[in-house]
Amino acid sequence: MNLLQDVLNRDVRAGARLIRWIDDGVGEARAILKQLYAHGGKAHIIGITGNPGAGKSTLVDQLIRRYREQKKTVAVVAVDPSSPFSGGAILGDRIRMQEHALDDDVFIRSFATRGHLGGLTSTTADVVYVLDAMGWDIVIVETVGVGQDEVEIQRLAHTTVVVMAPGMGDEIQAIKAGILEIADVFAVNKSDREGADRTVRELRLMLDMGKETIQHQKERVCPPGWMPQVVKTVSTKGEGVDDLLTALTDHQKSFQDACQNPAFVTARLRRQFLDIFRRTLFARGWSYLMHEDHLKQIVEQLQSGSSDPYTLAEQAVKALGRF
Amino acid sequence: MNLLQDVLNRDVRAGARLIRWIDDGVGEARAILKQLYAHGGKAHIIGITGNPGAGKSTLVDQLIRRYREQKKTVAVVAVDPSSPFSGGAILGDRIRMQEHALDDDVFIRSFATRGHLGGLTSTTADVVYVLDAMGWDIVIVETVGVGQDEVEIQRLAHTTVVVMAPGMGDEIQAIKAGILEIADVFAVNKSDREGADRTVRELRLMLDMGKETIQHQKERVCPPGWMPQVVKTVSTKGEGVDDLLTALTDHQKSFQDACQNPAFVTARLRRQFLDIFRRTLFARGWSYLMHEDHLKQIVEQLQSGSSDPYTLAEQAVKALGRF
Repeated sequence: MNLLQDVLNRDVRAGARLIRWIDDGVGEARAILKQLYAHGGKAHIIGITGNPGAGKSTLVDQLIRRYREQKKTVAVVAVDPSSPFSGGAILGDRIRMQEHALDDDVFIRSFATRGHLGGLTSTTADVVYVLDAMGWDIVIVETVGVGQDEVEIQRLAHTTVVVMAPGMGDEIQAIKAGILEIADVFAVNKSDREGADRTVRELRLMLDMGKETIQHQKERVCPPGWMPQVVKTVSTKGEGVDDLLTALTDHQKSFQDACQNPAFVTARLRRQFLDIFRRTLFARGWSYLMHEDHLKQIVEQLQSGSSDPYTLAEQAVKALGRF
Repeated sequence: MNLLQDVLNRDVRAGARLIRWIDDGVGEARAILKQLYAHGGKAHIIGITGNPGAGKSTLVDQLIRRYREQKKTVAVVAVDPSSPFSGGAILGDRIRMQEHALDDDVFIRSFATRGHLGGLTSTTADVVYVLDAMGWDIVIVETVGVGQDEVEIQRLAHTTVVVMAPGMGDEIQAIKAGILEIADVFAVNKSDREGADRTVRELRLMLDMGKETIQHQKERVCPPGWMPQVVKTVSTKGEGVDDLLTALTDHQKSFQDACQNPAFVTARLRRQFLDIFRRTLFARGWSYLMHEDHLKQIVEQLQSGSSDPYTLAEQAVKALGRF
């Protein structure tokens, strides 16, 4: 297949098309994903997350520039569960693309999915596999907000950065949402603002207090023993970006050293498989429900009160096997 | 079964036990859920969401008091995706329980699930069905944070309240996270703080700008034509709680009037079924993978590079049918 070959040759337009297919759920994408899979595993995948307004995009732009200075190729996928109000994804995308429009070694795409409400989970992982197989040195996954998405990103990324801004209540958010356990590096951005030093202090204190829990969590991922770093940045002025880059490179090195360990490789493959299995299962379940008005019949039974949804769900899952 | 009867008689200890069974995934819970289901559909379900620090818990306490003055019985389930750091759920629970300890017509439980990382989604819906069947007049579901959880809560609740505090960056969050579309009522809490009036103005402006989108969204839920209300509160002093209660009652009325419409009933039953179907499908998939080392064999094939996870997932889903 031509598209496969073009994607493997890091053809930007072919990559963009395949990603669009994945986003739209085009069936052909899956056949290509199967063949692409063996070509991945070389990129360093960095997840960047944090609340809106923390300055993630500007920070990512700074990182792109630094990685380009090091002659590394960079792909960025911004996962934006945007509401119809924001339209931020598309707009931001265009502005950011412009700066790197003439640079073939930078690839930026936004991706509006947040998992279909019908129950399918996000296909961000597939997009990351594509970028990995394309041969980009650095793949950055940027996500908005704090929640389920972030946990998924951490499972996908090799290095996870949480971006915070002082005085936004982010500190409390951090404890509540379990962000302390997922971050490998914290960037306290907008650190020329009042309260930045306090945010840094509080974070370090919380990390110290939670040391054992964090290390326990980290043991299950990689590298074991890594303690999250806290870095101050002012992304609009480029301040602290070198420190951030150093922290990222340190983590990448320690990741590469430690994570060749077979136990971690196994855990990673297992997680990857479970994610794909879950999505395949959903897709099949959905096809069954759509087939011959199955779902409609089920809802009619619920309306008439002749059965309950738990019993009907069990029957449908059983019938799925004969389908 | 005794537990079923006790739960239907609104026995608080029986209810607490069943909820614990659901949380722990005890198999017997499912049999009871099937029988409970027909007894539900009477409670008014209110979802309350917002960032940590916005003052949700205090506001819920105020609401409990007002509903009790109206002789309504109230159950509260607080869904707290707590990290090992916070332990907030349990602590807050105890403090809150104390005030109402002698009141048999108030039931408060925290619930720490956030959906198992293995892929099972939250069982909050099951807990709400139990409370509904128990016969509480008002069931309040309180959730922390902004994200997937909130969307789920909106699908579960009849009336959704988003609590915001001025100056916490909540306004930006609102647009980004699509919170504008899910709220039926906004409570701008801590409104004695500077910036409260600006927050209210901005929210109203955003709602006005997004009017068409919101009404389009609302049409799919219920009641059609409802425009989100914005109410100022100071929960610690009880200020504005009457206004909030009026907004809630207005929405409840318009919900009850409009939502007897067969199309909405059907849509609701459909959503309910899909949620339960999804969870049943997961549970079955997981049993298959755990059976006879299936998952282990799959991971071994991935390690040896003899296949890719997409192909293996398809094979597993097919084999599930013969399992």
